[in-house]
Amino acid sequence: MNHPHVAIVGATGAVGVEMLLCLEQRNFPLSKLKLLASARSAGKKMTFRGEEITVEELTHDSFGDVDIALFSAGGGISLEYGPSAAAAGAVVIDNSSAFRMDADVPLVVPEINPEAAKNRPRGIIANPNCTTIISLMALAPLHAAFGLRSIIASTYQAVSGSGAQGIVELEEQMKAIASDQPFTPKIYPRQIAFNVIPQVDAFTDNGYTKEELKMLNEGRKIMDLPELRVSCTCVRVPVYRSHSVSITAQFERPVDVAAARAAYEGRPGVNVVDDPSAKLFPVPLDTTGKDDCLVGRIRKNLVFDNALDLWVVGDQVRKGAALNAVQIAEIL
Amino acid sequence: MNHPHVAIVGATGAVGVEMLLCLEQRNFPLSKLKLLASARSAGKKMTFRGEEITVEELTHDSFGDVDIALFSAGGGISLEYGPSAAAAGAVVIDNSSAFRMDADVPLVVPEINPEAAKNRPRGIIANPNCTTIISLMALAPLHAAFGLRSIIASTYQAVSGSGAQGIVELEEQMKAIASDQPFTPKIYPRQIAFNVIPQVDAFTDNGYTKEELKMLNEGRKIMDLPELRVSCTCVRVPVYRSHSVSITAQFERPVDVAAARAAYEGRPGVNVVDDPSAKLFPVPLDTTGKDDCLVGRIRKNLVFDNALDLWVVGDQVRKGAALNAVQIAEIL
Repeated sequence: MNHPHVAIVGATGAVGVEMLLCLEQRNFPLSKLKLLASARSAGKKMTFRGEEITVEELTHDSFGDVDIALFSAGGGISLEYGPSAAAAGAVVIDNSSAFRMDADVPLVVPEINPEAAKNRPRGIIANPNCTTIISLMALAPLHAAFGLRSIIASTYQAVSGSGAQGIVELEEQMKAIASDQPFTPKIYPRQIAFNVIPQVDAFTDNGYTKEELKMLNEGRKIMDLPELRVSCTCVRVPVYRSHSVSITAQFERPVDVAAARAAYEGRPGVNVVDDPSAKLFPVPLDTTGKDDCLVGRIRKNLVFDNALDLWVVGDQVRKGAALNAVQIAEIL
Repeated sequence: MNHPHVAIVGATGAVGVEMLLCLEQRNFPLSKLKLLASARSAGKKMTFRGEEITVEELTHDSFGDVDIALFSAGGGISLEYGPSAAAAGAVVIDNSSAFRMDADVPLVVPEINPEAAKNRPRGIIANPNCTTIISLMALAPLHAAFGLRSIIASTYQAVSGSGAQGIVELEEQMKAIASDQPFTPKIYPRQIAFNVIPQVDAFTDNGYTKEELKMLNEGRKIMDLPELRVSCTCVRVPVYRSHSVSITAQFERPVDVAAARAAYEGRPGVNVVDDPSAKLFPVPLDTTGKDDCLVGRIRKNLVFDNALDLWVVGDQVRKGAALNAVQIAEIL
């Protein structure tokens, strides 16, 4: 088979830029790379493997000769252009939430359910929510060992989860505070500098945010556990990059900390950093720009039988988005 | 009865300064205020109700005419000088962890178990851990309504929980990063600026930190619930002041969100800020320098029956330490 022709839709965005980087760093075998974005960004030049590529304007005719289209330009763009790309013969790997819960669209974390990518009646594969990917990278090995039953999670989510504008907002607030200037929050509902905000994404009727319900709905689909119970509190913290999640996980079978640590051995994409006696645990700075998620603070939960408390950290722009999409492209 | 003679031990520390402020702001009726500290701080002058008071060196003879001694100078000082103060006839209100689990020392949150302060065979009353106080301020009204059974908590703890040196560490790291200078973490095991650290206080044998076990042990004692189960993950965040806690609480009886909100009505020291439709929820900046704890994000937990998820925020220097100690003095 010839190397595929790949397109990135939303190439100039935070995740798009990271997708380009992942394709380059992983020596992804491609015959041609097309960079697509809105009219506003068209004409910009980006470098890939030492060559300049001019960003083209996204249209419904952009996908005639494309084999794999990586979408990361928001749900609206995915809904409008994803089907066109699929109709033109491209396999769409979509980073938005637009198609994730569509029964005819597989939702894939390559280390967890790679086989799901094969059955894609709409020609679309969805990339899961970043916090969900990172949490499941920690939980899938434990599920294999003990049988996952429920998840209670509290998150510590970085501002780059809101794209480049989240980074700018934190930077600008830091500068304003340092120079004693007033400022008004723009993209977050409250000041994020030296503060934490217990709201990520919009609220739904039951008092949970969309982000919090993604862990439940996407978790069930990816893990193929329709009875899985998940309750989540998502919180934005003044960290630039990498999400952290504090998890209590209940299992079907008795748990053991040593066996839990051993369950990660040989598992790709996730490493254990967990030695309290040496003050070893993962923090967001450890995973920034890295592919692997890191798990630590593994201990027996003190409320429930068969339950563990743990702490997982991962770069949500990379494994939580761009890298996972490129890994899906690799298994095609 | 004459107004009491009050002493503050550790008057120049972060909590000591706040105790002075609380005594002044609450018009605490006292006949005389003695400020005590180490030899290093003796001779400093502090202002109380417009008058200068010179800080004296703490000795075993400091308490001859003292009625109430507020200790906040670390566990070692409390262990060494607390019994001397009590033997001299002062009631000791100790902010350290030294005596908290002593069966002959009551552990008091005035809004929750004020009657416990009456029985103090050692002449010592202990002030609970800050995170525990803030969490229980949110849980006590719900316990009255539904019967508390278990707590799962993840915390977002401010650097001032480590005293003035925590504030200095975050400030210095921010400046170093802004000017692209290298720096080495001193009091925290990792960089705290633009990072979060899943370790507060020292690790114990079971993988939990001392801070995490305080919520269990102190929570049982304060709530008089010896069977209460608590599992906690304590995390330091780059916030200057006010701790936040994400809580999943299980109850004996069926729960209801409206009834939960109503349970706070008429309760002193805790207010509900919880209207998702108006994007209303508490954040640390809301409680900084304030007496009341704020509760929001109240919703039915999606894993367990009879369980609620909620978010509580409180100023840990005030309600979590200085204010609570002064409130104990007020009920004497």
